[in-house]
Amino acid sequence: MNSPEDVKKLDKDGLLQLCDEIRSYLIECCSANPGHLGASLGTVELCVALHYVFNAPKDKIVFDVGHQAYAHKIITGRREAFRKNRMAGGISGFPKMSESPYDSFGVGHASTSISAALGMAVAAQYRGIEEQVVAVIGDGAMTGGLAYEGLLNAGSLRTNILIVLNDNQMSIDKSTTSMHSYLVKLTTGKRYNRIKENVWTKLGHTVFRRWIQTRVKNLKRVLFNTNETATLFDSLGIRYFGPINGNDIEQLVFALRRLKDITGPKILHIVTVKGKGYKPAEDSQTVWHAPGYFDPTTGELHPHDHRGRCRYQDVFGETLLDLARANANIVGITPAMLAGCGMSIMQQQMPERVFDVGIEELHAVTFSCGLASQGLLPYCNIYSSFMQRGFDGVIHDAAVQNLKVVFCLDRGGLVGEDGATHQGAFDMAMFRPIPNLVIASPLNEHELRDMLFSAAMPEWKTPIIRYPRGYGEGVEWKGTEFNAIPAGKARKLSEGRGVALLSIGPIGNKGAEAVSRLRTEGFEVMHYDMRFLKPIDEEAIADAVGNASIIVTLEDGALLGGLHSSVSEYVAERSIDCEVIGLGIPDKFIEQATQEEQYSACGFNTEDIYKVLASALKK
Amino acid sequence: MNSPEDVKKLDKDGLLQLCDEIRSYLIECCSANPGHLGASLGTVELCVALHYVFNAPKDKIVFDVGHQAYAHKIITGRREAFRKNRMAGGISGFPKMSESPYDSFGVGHASTSISAALGMAVAAQYRGIEEQVVAVIGDGAMTGGLAYEGLLNAGSLRTNILIVLNDNQMSIDKSTTSMHSYLVKLTTGKRYNRIKENVWTKLGHTVFRRWIQTRVKNLKRVLFNTNETATLFDSLGIRYFGPINGNDIEQLVFALRRLKDITGPKILHIVTVKGKGYKPAEDSQTVWHAPGYFDPTTGELHPHDHRGRCRYQDVFGETLLDLARANANIVGITPAMLAGCGMSIMQQQMPERVFDVGIEELHAVTFSCGLASQGLLPYCNIYSSFMQRGFDGVIHDAAVQNLKVVFCLDRGGLVGEDGATHQGAFDMAMFRPIPNLVIASPLNEHELRDMLFSAAMPEWKTPIIRYPRGYGEGVEWKGTEFNAIPAGKARKLSEGRGVALLSIGPIGNKGAEAVSRLRTEGFEVMHYDMRFLKPIDEEAIADAVGNASIIVTLEDGALLGGLHSSVSEYVAERSIDCEVIGLGIPDKFIEQATQEEQYSACGFNTEDIYKVLASALKK
Repeated sequence: MNSPEDVKKLDKDGLLQLCDEIRSYLIECCSANPGHLGASLGTVELCVALHYVFNAPKDKIVFDVGHQAYAHKIITGRREAFRKNRMAGGISGFPKMSESPYDSFGVGHASTSISAALGMAVAAQYRGIEEQVVAVIGDGAMTGGLAYEGLLNAGSLRTNILIVLNDNQMSIDKSTTSMHSYLVKLTTGKRYNRIKENVWTKLGHTVFRRWIQTRVKNLKRVLFNTNETATLFDSLGIRYFGPINGNDIEQLVFALRRLKDITGPKILHIVTVKGKGYKPAEDSQTVWHAPGYFDPTTGELHPHDHRGRCRYQDVFGETLLDLARANANIVGITPAMLAGCGMSIMQQQMPERVFDVGIEELHAVTFSCGLASQGLLPYCNIYSSFMQRGFDGVIHDAAVQNLKVVFCLDRGGLVGEDGATHQGAFDMAMFRPIPNLVIASPLNEHELRDMLFSAAMPEWKTPIIRYPRGYGEGVEWKGTEFNAIPAGKARKLSEGRGVALLSIGPIGNKGAEAVSRLRTEGFEVMHYDMRFLKPIDEEAIADAVGNASIIVTLEDGALLGGLHSSVSEYVAERSIDCEVIGLGIPDKFIEQATQEEQYSACGFNTEDIYKVLASALKK
Repeated sequence: MNSPEDVKKLDKDGLLQLCDEIRSYLIECCSANPGHLGASLGTVELCVALHYVFNAPKDKIVFDVGHQAYAHKIITGRREAFRKNRMAGGISGFPKMSESPYDSFGVGHASTSISAALGMAVAAQYRGIEEQVVAVIGDGAMTGGLAYEGLLNAGSLRTNILIVLNDNQMSIDKSTTSMHSYLVKLTTGKRYNRIKENVWTKLGHTVFRRWIQTRVKNLKRVLFNTNETATLFDSLGIRYFGPINGNDIEQLVFALRRLKDITGPKILHIVTVKGKGYKPAEDSQTVWHAPGYFDPTTGELHPHDHRGRCRYQDVFGETLLDLARANANIVGITPAMLAGCGMSIMQQQMPERVFDVGIEELHAVTFSCGLASQGLLPYCNIYSSFMQRGFDGVIHDAAVQNLKVVFCLDRGGLVGEDGATHQGAFDMAMFRPIPNLVIASPLNEHELRDMLFSAAMPEWKTPIIRYPRGYGEGVEWKGTEFNAIPAGKARKLSEGRGVALLSIGPIGNKGAEAVSRLRTEGFEVMHYDMRFLKPIDEEAIADAVGNASIIVTLEDGALLGGLHSSVSEYVAERSIDCEVIGLGIPDKFIEQATQEEQYSACGFNTEDIYKVLASALKK
């Protein structure tokens, strides 16, 4: 199986067998090299059917989010490469234009597929090219505002486009919006279930022998008499078909073939099971969204040994609960990352005070501002790279109005295997120009805890607290007493002369290691944990430039616009004779690898920092 | 009429008279002091009815966009202040929390009202406070993805909230999305029109004598038997009522009163006429969205004399048409700013190549990327401050994939009377950290034309071209030959020693004036028009620091993160003994005033620049 051409040669039994083989291969590969298994197990039949019916790469298949595209990758010439899925030098875990002509549009964030596919279809129409464009979008991604914007434009332009709505009633956690309830209504309607029972389930795979022709009549009913309640999409000018069983290759092939000939924008609603065909994954879908290492036979999870360290998300989750217990005004808001950000801990204890709003980052921000305007203290947690979607809300709804929402940015900095689309590289640089914000990043778990506590203080106007993906430093933090951190106050970690290190965030621990190593060699480097990018602690910088002629700034974020810029401005404005060396994420997109590999690629792993400091000391 | 309490005392005739008086006052004030007249004329009855039925500020009225809130401002104690609407020291043209307790949530951008109102309603419920929350949103704003996100969350939470959908079938230009078609269907349905004819129009105002009680039966039918096609909102869990005539105060009062008692999320669809009650404005709604000065009696427009200068938007519009005529791959995309950005010029000549996608900035970006992925060359024009909504798309869909969309940011820099929410202050700073972008800003009309032409060259990877609101410098540009500008190449405007001025964008003309004045006094200042923020011309900076010990940077954008940061980094990285003084927008939100007043407030009007340079020369 090296190309979609091979898929097209198969008969019905062959297709079934192919699905089984792909599924086994996915489980095997992902058990040894972690990835987003659940979503991709659910869409094996869909990927096979799409390549069976359509002629990619001429026809365009546009995946949304991209978690669900593993089978697509395997079919389109990347079977062996898939063993290095998400690894440095390997293939991306998401569709990526530069990786394969079959990846018609790159992705990673949610809800882009309809807009992108519509652009492609309009371009094809404009250039007189005959081609099919298919967007594959999950029910979770369908809740994003961008998907709606795409639907409205598609419904207006009337260009040929097929949207496959892959409905597994999950985003990562259970879906929470009224779109979810609406889809449940569609799929639990009497009509759908009657047909499902009578036509599909009973006939099952045995009818492959008589294949599609004999069933046209029944299928026609399913496809072309739309469900009576299904007028939402029709209202917006998108013809609705379905729902059908998206784990049944025969149904899929038949439906996709018929829909090829129907002009205009249309939506095919398919119902799939996340984790399909692998019992542990079907039974526990949130865990198996991205399960890490596991035993493929038993389904036993093999968590890596993190030497007793907790993840930053755990610290956030536990601390938020502690704070909420002490302050009735505190509420929690997350756009569909309840478990991922740790807010599930509070949600289990006080569900009425936690709002999972679905994959709706901008709404999460503006909704939080509405809550804040009435005196509540919302903690709104959004992954750093997804916060790019909420950017305008932080400016227009929070900062302009001086409303106090504590924005907590998990996954700030380099994130590892998810690669370029998910790097939390730009948060500090993009927020620094915005008035009224306080931008902080903790050195470790304990400091994160104190910052979450301190954010309630009035001087922390509209706080942005960013911290990285993954495991902490292993310092004591559970149940520790809260210490107030004044906004804009740095902390000196070590004294020294000649060279000073100014760091922000947990990457400062690598800096401290490097400094400590130099100390054993007889060199003293001044080191400040700046803690705040904004307001910046000018006294700390003054102390540094007063004692050193070389300043090294260290940040796990874009060099352009962040701490390095801030310190450079200080020095340049005052015409201070001092060299400022910046360590941080350079001006390029950082592809998939482990976090440590990425730190090295960007030149700020402990060894790199040590070398830069050592060389500075020698000047 | 000094507070909503006074409104509540009125009888029906009094309400009618009040509406007439407000309308006359709006026309009078706006004729002498320009503002957003059309939208506010259409919502006079709505504002009066809301204050008649609800008890603000206890009950919360949340306006979307805010253009339509003038009557609300007049009713809530700002009648006299309204004469200084949008002026320095006067009141904002938009609702603003710090201005009045009746402005429950500030606004300026579209589609925020449902999310904010939902936050308020949830907070009230959580705190056990009995209050009503009403969001007022136009059909244009309803096309924004954020509105949909708000609807989905409202439909899921089931909190009490009333959404008034103010449907005038316009955003600024005619609405273009399928939401528009859907609403047309609702309002042209036989049932609505039959009722409208039989019940409303014929009865007209005469029935005020018998008032509401006698009409309960008919009204009930209108309100509580929803239109059969109106299931879109119901599908999402929002009960739909209407449509009713939103310029009929009696209908409005009755409907709002009844809806107060209905729990859960609900939407009242009202149909209004933009410009209502003022014939010139009703007849030409796009022009009268913000008509400038006019004669209130005749409706004759009085454009200010701009000494024959054109606006930057005209230069963009004409040039895009020129370029599109020569290159069949060029297409234009605008999110509902067809006239505002000048793309209407191309649209009139080649409508099939221009896409007005509605108020959907993020979709505009991603849709453009879809077009670009198939070899077209989209010019996507988005106002600078609205581009904050499209930020993630530029990163995730354009820059990561190196797709070539020419992003044209009109209204970059200080915009004048629209104030804090509309300042194009952050564009340069927010985009500078993003890899693969080329960020340019022209000195004048001619250079804008050349940049729009040059952007097609491969070295201009993903171009961002930003230019200000308003009139240009008066230089020759129409039909001039195109000159290729190499990406990242600055241009020296004058030679000098000791002090150098590095500017970007048209604000550089003020810099050139200051330099020229100093020349008459015998001082020579080196002046570079940097033209590009990214890639920055390091040779130009090297030349400047080689000849000057003080560099003054000048930009009509946030000081933090833009040109000043970039030059500071250059100097600090190289430990160059040179002072860098930054002129630009300081770290605060700039309120309404004229552009010139705002330049002065930020310290970079010609006189300010002159003083800074003169003082630098004396050092």
